Amino acid sequence: MDEGRRPDDEKGEAEETAELLREYERQIMALPVQEHVERMLTTLSGLALQRLGIGEKEPAACSPQEARLAIDAFRALTEVLAQDEPERGGVYRATLAQMQLAFVSVAGGRAAGKGGAGATPETNGEDDGEAGKNGEGL
Amino acid sequence: MDEGRRPDDEKGEAEETAELLREYERQIMALPVQEHVERMLTTLSGLALQRLGIGEKEPAACSPQEARLAIDAFRALTEVLAQDEPERGGVYRATLAQMQLAFVSVAGGRAAGKGGAGATPETNGEDDGEAGKNGEGL
Repeated sequence: MDEGRRPDDEKGEAEETAELLREYERQIMALPVQEHVERMLTTLSGLALQRLGIGEKEPAACSPQEARLAIDAFRALTEVLAQDEPERGGVYRATLAQMQLAFVSVAGGRAAGKGGAGATPETNGEDDGEAGKNGEGL
Repeated sequence: MDEGRRPDDEKGEAEETAELLREYERQIMALPVQEHVERMLTTLSGLALQRLGIGEKEPAACSPQEARLAIDAFRALTEVLAQDEPERGGVYRATLAQMQLAFVSVAGGRAAGKGGAGATPETNGEDDGEAGKNGEGL
């Protein structure tokens, strides 16, 4: 601890920050569960687009296999939300359809460019190796 | 702006904090999608137990209807993860079964105490109004 920087002040600030974070967590957990699920959908759609390399400056994150998982999770949560709210479900299904199209466009194009549309996963690169095998999951 | 508190320093700190938060978000988004989904499962199980009033100091948050949504979302994501990792899926299914038991124990007990196990949702209180109707969803 650097005595010259008034450790008591620093400790006070750290405790204040910790308390703020705890309060933040309490507030987050107090949100309706539906809102949590909707935030998860937002996160999953962002991840799916990122892993498809859409709008990314660093295409290193590109992974059709992970994009597929994000899209599958998005679809699963959409179905759960749609049980209670059919109208909201329609909105999420539209987003889901867009992501599925993007997946086919990106992952299908990558597979075709590397090893042909009918190539087995083993003949493809690491990034899109699972795209063909799991395409039917979408 | 309070001139006495060196606004330039404050601005610098605010920008530093904002940059840290952006970096944090970048790191979070860079995590494997599977890890995101597993974090969602953790959040959902926490929410389910909280909404069932288990381990809560403030039972005001208790809502079997919201607990059911959290459990349904947990089950949906578990099925998605289990497609790729059957063994991990078994772990999550065990957690799911525990939550379902807790739901029946808490929501079933509350419904029985208030209006009988066969009571229609309309005869129950606001908190557990949907528990009976949606029990089959678990």
